[in-house]
Order: sequence, then structure tokens, then C-alpha cells
Amino acid sequence: MTDDTYISLFDSTLRDGAQTQGVDFATADKLAIAAALDGLGLDYVEGGWPGANPTDDAFFAELPELSTSRLVAFGMTRRSGRSAGNDPVLAALVNSKARHVCLVGKASDFQVEVALGITLDENLAMIRDSVAHLVKTKDQVLFDAEHFFDGYISDPGYALECLKAAHQAGTRWVVLCDTNGGTLPREIGRIVEKVTAEIPGRQVAIHCHNDTENAVANSLAAIDAGARQIQGTLNGLGERCGNANLVSLIPTLMLKTDYKIGVSEDKLKDLTRVSHLLDERLNRAPNRTAAYVGDSAFAHKAGLHASAVEKDPRTYEHIDPAVVGNRRHVVISDQAGRSSMLARFRELDIDVEVASDKLGALIETVKAREFEGYAYDGAEASFELLARRALGEVPHFFKLSRFRIMDDRRWNARGELVTESEATVTIEVGGTAHMEVAAGNGPVNALDTAIRKALLPLYPQLEDMRLVDYKVRILTPQAGTRAVTRVMIESADNAGRRWTTVGVSPNIIDASFNALHDGITWKLMQEGAEVPGPAS
Amino acid sequence: MTDDTYISLFDSTLRDGAQTQGVDFATADKLAIAAALDGLGLDYVEGGWPGANPTDDAFFAELPELSTSRLVAFGMTRRSGRSAGNDPVLAALVNSKARHVCLVGKASDFQVEVALGITLDENLAMIRDSVAHLVKTKDQVLFDAEHFFDGYISDPGYALECLKAAHQAGTRWVVLCDTNGGTLPREIGRIVEKVTAEIPGRQVAIHCHNDTENAVANSLAAIDAGARQIQGTLNGLGERCGNANLVSLIPTLMLKTDYKIGVSEDKLKDLTRVSHLLDERLNRAPNRTAAYVGDSAFAHKAGLHASAVEKDPRTYEHIDPAVVGNRRHVVISDQAGRSSMLARFRELDIDVEVASDKLGALIETVKAREFEGYAYDGAEASFELLARRALGEVPHFFKLSRFRIMDDRRWNARGELVTESEATVTIEVGGTAHMEVAAGNGPVNALDTAIRKALLPLYPQLEDMRLVDYKVRILTPQAGTRAVTRVMIESADNAGRRWTTVGVSPNIIDASFNALHDGITWKLMQEGAEVPGPAS
Repeated sequence: MTDDTYISLFDSTLRDGAQTQGVDFATADKLAIAAALDGLGLDYVEGGWPGANPTDDAFFAELPELSTSRLVAFGMTRRSGRSAGNDPVLAALVNSKARHVCLVGKASDFQVEVALGITLDENLAMIRDSVAHLVKTKDQVLFDAEHFFDGYISDPGYALECLKAAHQAGTRWVVLCDTNGGTLPREIGRIVEKVTAEIPGRQVAIHCHNDTENAVANSLAAIDAGARQIQGTLNGLGERCGNANLVSLIPTLMLKTDYKIGVSEDKLKDLTRVSHLLDERLNRAPNRTAAYVGDSAFAHKAGLHASAVEKDPRTYEHIDPAVVGNRRHVVISDQAGRSSMLARFRELDIDVEVASDKLGALIETVKAREFEGYAYDGAEASFELLARRALGEVPHFFKLSRFRIMDDRRWNARGELVTESEATVTIEVGGTAHMEVAAGNGPVNALDTAIRKALLPLYPQLEDMRLVDYKVRILTPQAGTRAVTRVMIESADNAGRRWTTVGVSPNIIDASFNALHDGITWKLMQEGAEVPGPAS
Repeated sequence: MTDDTYISLFDSTLRDGAQTQGVDFATADKLAIAAALDGLGLDYVEGGWPGANPTDDAFFAELPELSTSRLVAFGMTRRSGRSAGNDPVLAALVNSKARHVCLVGKASDFQVEVALGITLDENLAMIRDSVAHLVKTKDQVLFDAEHFFDGYISDPGYALECLKAAHQAGTRWVVLCDTNGGTLPREIGRIVEKVTAEIPGRQVAIHCHNDTENAVANSLAAIDAGARQIQGTLNGLGERCGNANLVSLIPTLMLKTDYKIGVSEDKLKDLTRVSHLLDERLNRAPNRTAAYVGDSAFAHKAGLHASAVEKDPRTYEHIDPAVVGNRRHVVISDQAGRSSMLARFRELDIDVEVASDKLGALIETVKAREFEGYAYDGAEASFELLARRALGEVPHFFKLSRFRIMDDRRWNARGELVTESEATVTIEVGGTAHMEVAAGNGPVNALDTAIRKALLPLYPQLEDMRLVDYKVRILTPQAGTRAVTRVMIESADNAGRRWTTVGVSPNIIDASFNALHDGITWKLMQEGAEVPGPAS
């Protein structure tokens, strides 16, 4: 870290990220995420606030052993009117096993006077005392200068005094926080230059929020102006619009600048996986358009672009997707020609030599189905089935011979509105018909339930399959409810697979069934299921 | 536009945005979005590529009348080996009614030699000839210098020659495209400075992609370096990681810089609505964490921040959310809700003095219904009915006492797949029950047909009402087909009215009925219909 181009990376997913609405990490989540961050090679991992809640207490009690990252406990400067040695928040930090602590305090006259309602001098004393108290027992103390940029714009002298109070008391890093996220890159650069003229850049960190969509650029502007630590979170998790996204910053720093960071080329290949790990822990669908790691980040739709990428990927790709563990994606749409279809086959590990015989017919099929309303650019699993069916590789796991659905809505004798749905299905598997009936929360749910009831005894592999998203679009809106309906279903299983299938029909229930049929078939293929014989 | 601080805004949602995976605009979508962009006050709206596909052809054939924005048609420079006068792509542009055109051409030696496989001189001639050909018949020609930044880094001289060829041939704007999206803000600034030393900045535009999460910052860096037009899209829609997000740039330029743009303070209040309009058209859930317009952009998780915000919003908010038409989300405060509710009443010509008595109860109702899953942002007609119902202004035109729907899918004796839907409804109007039955193309269509069959003899005003769009969204995707369903229905009539209504239920058919009921009721109110007496 003596190298002046080294940028220290500080992750706050488990602390500032946990401030996000709807985010509620369990201790197990925190341990898994801390291990992943450590595996990437980040310099600091902020684990939470000991004493603030039971989850954070449990996390610090277990204190994971990290091989590379320093584990940081978060807290606040002492309250006004207390001594540092007699403050319960500081005591929780002292007693925590964490060897590194980060203390937040105000660095803005407005915030001190309005939010805290204390004097400017008392605030300086709170910073000074708290840092001095903790450096006695900890390896490193960081000082989060909250609202620093707004504070600097309002009163530069006072904002700098706050930093100096922490610096002189022995803080390892002063962290310049754009707490409200409203500062633009040019202004960040200008102010950080002023700071690094007074405090050495290798002790100055930047902490940005994304309220103007500039958190990544603000972080870059700060290091260009001399700061040497960036604080951020995985996937930009954080309050309001989120924090600076380390998942975007890490490859940018490594691949596009002369700065050095602690992440190796080898670890960089893990970036997409780590990004998705956080989404899984949060039970969120990953952002398809995320820089570097999104499913669409290297997707090519337009015919011209797709054929240029086939010639040389550099024509429409700023980096090789494999470098960050992502992959190229040639989107199948009616613009797709032969070359993008073949590229898609290679991705699916389909034997191209065999396939190329049937390519003409397959392109015709795709075009015809897209004309009917199918869309394969969001339904990769249905496309794979279409291709493999053309090659005769897909078993007929089951056939829906018939369904009959009844929906009833009425006021009952007590004047309550009652809605009921019931589905009867006849399913043929290996020559044997199976009839089942189920009630449901609406017609599609009733149908889904009845089909599963029929299939599960025959295909126990379906036990862990679940629907995670269900989308409906009407394709000829001029026709209103008489229009053709396209249903996209996203499914998932416990092995971490997610796959999307599509169904089209003038009847929404029939369209749902078509998408469901593909979804189940794809899952059974992945599991290598075999069609039971007539005897079973 | 003679003011040197004026930044021209060019929207490409309907052209570059349409390149996005999964995006498939209908002509009606394009018309609605163009009208919204024009309403905001953007300088240019790029509508699509005439001759490239039937949707774009239909859009340019209807050619919407815009009051502020210039409508732009997109195309490509002539093919190698053809004359400009004999090129079909250019001919489609010449024949298009659009008075402004944007031509894309390469500005990178690598792209010319590898992707096109032609000589550098031929590429210059293609640019020069094509621009010169079009300036003869069009008001303005813009030149999209594709891959300009990669081209400049590889061979600055040639990249500049491409710009100059277009400039000398009479282009209004040379557009510097970071096509692969890999350039960082500092580099963008450095290169744009070189360009504006040779070509006046008021003729230089910037077009960025978000592959490093820097598209907004890159656009700002370019104008700081002298460029005077920003190209982008609503919500950053676009291929791979998207284009520069105009929804973030517009308020940033207006509220945080000295630049001037064509959007007025009054129109800025419409920004959140326009952003959500695009999502509705795409049937996507809006991005909650979007800068300025996201649902979470001004959300404060209970605790220290929330109570500071109660004291003074400036403690944790970089701008007042009302300025961009968004709202604060603090559980305790009803203030924002009250005032925006009153603002909406005024829009609907509801008597505010009378309404303000019932305002508290109405806010509670809206909150309760939004908790159930209703969304009134895109369903103004349903909101109006909700408000007028609270004031006792809405007659009970009809009540659906019961429906019963049967869907049947089976293979018939000839081995053909048959799907049938049949709906029976009992409708009460003015104390009299009317029972009807109808078949349909799916359950919702059958229900709709049966209801109309029952109502039309009683309310002939419904004759010209038709459904123009029908959208379904699942609100708790984790629950798959068991989730709660929200249906939005757009209706239209021969008087040129268009109105949207919403219905929510765990049962998709019931949700559809709720939306349909509001749609019909709204129409009957507009027509001043009266409920027929029991005798009729």
C-alpha cells in the first residue's frame, strides 16, 4: 500500500446497504456475503453496528475469520455532554472483537446546528475525544465525515476543521461522505483537491450516494483528485438510490485505469457470481442491465450489431465478458440471421455441424412463431427447447389432453363476495392418462396446481421447481380483450437455476399452459428425467 | 439557442431504446411516448428508422404533430459502391415526411476496416455524399459518428476527418458516440475539448452508453468540455446497459448547474409521471431506486434519518421531491400526500373546498388500496372515480351480481386442439337483474362480451366504447401464479377520449372485471348517462 496508485476498497454492503428499505439480512446472509467479499480481495469489510440490533450482535459475536479483508465495526461519535469513556455506543465498539472501527460524525455546520442542535465546538470535541478514545485499543479508526460536501460548500473552514480534528486524534482514514448524494463529479473533484492539499491523499476516502446517478463517477473524480480509498456496496445497494457500486468500480479500475487494487485478475472472473449471490440472498431478480455483470450487458439484438460481433467482438463490446465472469448473449429476434443463430447454438453447447443442416428450417420456424407473437429474446429456455426439438432431442415428458376450468364469482348468503376457481386436467404420460382436479386462487393457479398434482408422483424432480415471475402482454391491443396473449413465466429451483419460457394463444389460460409446459419440460431435461413406461 | 449555456436535448427512446432486449413498441406506444416527450419540452425526438420495419413505417406515416420537439427520422449513410441518389435507405429518408434526419456512419479506422471491410477514403466519401444529398431536401441533418471515442483513441486524425466530412457537407450537429460505452468521464472530457477546438461546440453533440455506469457523468463531462447537445433516452432505455438517462440529466442540469434547457420548471413536475409512463408502456415495474423519480429516491427508513427529515428535509434530501413530481416516503408525514392529492383534485376540476373535508378519509382509502396493490399513477380514470365516489358523485350504473366462466381445451374427434370460453353474467341495473351468456376468445373476452350484451340495450352510449389495451402485472412474483394480479385497461371512444382503469384481485378474471367496471362507469359519467328506473 505504499504504491501511490493503490486504491483501497471498503465495502459497506452489510452496514450502509442494510439501511435500504426492504433489506433485512439474517446473520447467515452476512457471513456468506462477508466471505464472498473477502474472497474477492477487498481491503475492508464493514460488518454492521455492534449494539444496534441482535443480527449485528450475533455477527460480531461469531466474528468470521477473513483472510484478506479487515473487518470493520461501525459506530457513532460520543453523545454531546458525555465523556468518551462513559458513552455506551463507544463502549460497545471497544468491547467488540473487531480490530477496526469506523465512527460517524457530522462535518457540516447546518447539520450540527439543525439536526443535532449543539454548538460547532462541541461537535469538534466529540470527534476528537471519540477517535482518541478508540485508537488506544483498536488497530485502526476510520472517521466518516457525514455531509462533508454539503458542509464544505456551506462553510469550507468548519468542514475542514472536522476532518483535522479526526486526523490529529489519530484516525487512519478521513472518509468524505456525500451523504445526500447531490454533488456532481466536477464539484467532488474540486473539493477533494482542497482536502488533499491539507491531509495526505493516502488517508482520504470517498463515500458517495447515487441520487444523481453519478456515484461511480464521483468516486472516480475523487481518486483523480488524490483520495486513495473508495467506499461502496455490492450492486450499489443502499438507502434511497443506493451507494457507489463496487461491482462497476472494480472492473473499471482494473481494466480502464492505471490504478491498482487488491483484486486479482483471477478473482475478477468471480465478479458476476458475487453480484448474483447478493441478489439471491435478498431474493431479488438481478438487474439485467447492470454494467459488466448484467444478463444484458453483452447482449446484441440488432442484426447488424450481431453479425459484426461475430466477425470481431470488439466491434460492439468494450471488454471481453469472460474477464468479469459474464458471457456474450446473441439475442434471437426476427432480425436474427444465420450467424447469430449459430452463435446462440454454440452458447447452448448444441452440435453446430448437426444443427446447420436444419438451420434453414429452424430460422423459418422462429420467424413464423415470432409472427404469431412468440418472443424468444426474453425466453431463452423456450428457444433452447425449440432448437433441441428441431434436432429431436426433447422427450415428450407429458401431454395435456384436456383441461376444463370453472370460475365463479357471486355474493353468498351473508353478502360476501366469493370467487372460486377449479381446474380439471387430463394428462398423458408414457401412454397412461392421469386425471386430477384442484382449486386455486384464480384460473391459472388452479391449472398449475392440478398439473403439478398429476406430475409430481411421476417426476419427483419437480419438487423444488417454483414460479418466480409471471408476466402477461397483449399483442394486438387494438383488439382489446380479443387480442392475442403472450405469457412469460420465470421459474427457479433450489440448484440456483432461473429460466424463462413463453406461451402464446388468444386464450390467456392456454398461453399460460404453453409457457408452463416449456418450463416443466426444460427443468426435466436439466435433471435428465426419463419418461416413465406405461406400467408405472 | 444563441445562449451559449443552452443545452439541446435529443431523445432516442423510440430508436436506440427500441434496440433493447425485450422491448417491442407498438405504433400506439410510440405515439404516446412522442407526445409525452414533446410535452416535456425536449428539442428533438427521434422516432425510428423509416423503411426498417412495419411499426416504424406506420409511425412515420401517421407523423404526429409535435408542438415543441423536432421529429427526427434515423438512417444510415449510403452503402459502399452506390451513389447517394441511388441508395434505398437514403431514399426512404428523403421520402419520409420527417423534416429532420439523423444519419449514422463510422468514425473509427478499426470499424471501417474490420466491420465494414472498406477503405478509409470510401467511408469519408459515404459520409460526405450522404449528408450533402439530404441537406438538399431536409431542414436539418445530424451525423451520428459511431464509435467516435474508440476511433479517436486509435487514430485521432481519421476520427476528426470523419466529423469534418459531415460538418463541411452541412450537418447541423456532429454527434460523438461512445458506442461501446467503455470510455470514462475524464477521457470523454479530454477528447471533446479537442473536438470543440476544431468544430464549434454548438454543433457538437454527445451520445453515451452506460456500460461502465458512467453515461450520465460522461454526458456532463462532454458539455463541460464544450458540447451543446446531449442525446439519451427515458429511464436510460437502450441496448446492453442502456443509454444516458435523460430522466436523471434533466433535473441535474436544471437544479444543479448553470446550463439552460428547454424544460420549464412547470414541466419538470411531470418528470416522474413521464418516467412511469414508459414503464407502463413496456409493462415493466419502475426502478424503485432510480435517481429523482424512483419510489425509494426520497424514502427514509425509520430512525435517525426519518426524524431529522421531519425537522428539516434538507438534512437527508438533496432536492425537494415535489420539484420533479416525486414524493417523500416517510411513514409519519402525510403532508406531501395531502398537497399532491389537492393538486390532483384541481386537475380534475373537483371542488377543492368540498373535497378538503373528506381529504383525510380519502388519503386513508388511497393508502389502503395501494397497500392491496392498486396503482393510480397510470390509471387516472380509476383515481377520478375513487375521488368522486368519496364525494358521492358517482351513480351505481350497474352491479355484477355473479359471473360464471368455463374454459375448455381438448382435442376433438378430428385431432384438432379446441379451446372454448363461455361466460354467464347476472347484472343488476336499477333494481332489475339481467342475465346474459356469451362465448369468447378466452375468459376475459367472454366476460367482457357478456357484460356488454347485457348493458348495451340499457346504455346505448356504450356503443362506441372499445378496449385498446389490456395489461397484466403480477405484484408478488415470489408467489408465482398464486400472486395478486393487477390489470390495467385502456379504453377509447369515437369522441377521441382515452382512459385507463385498474383492477386488483388474486384472480385475474376478477381483477379484469374490476378494471372493466371502472372503465364503463367512467364512460357513462362522461356521457351524463342516467340509471334506468326499475320499469325500463
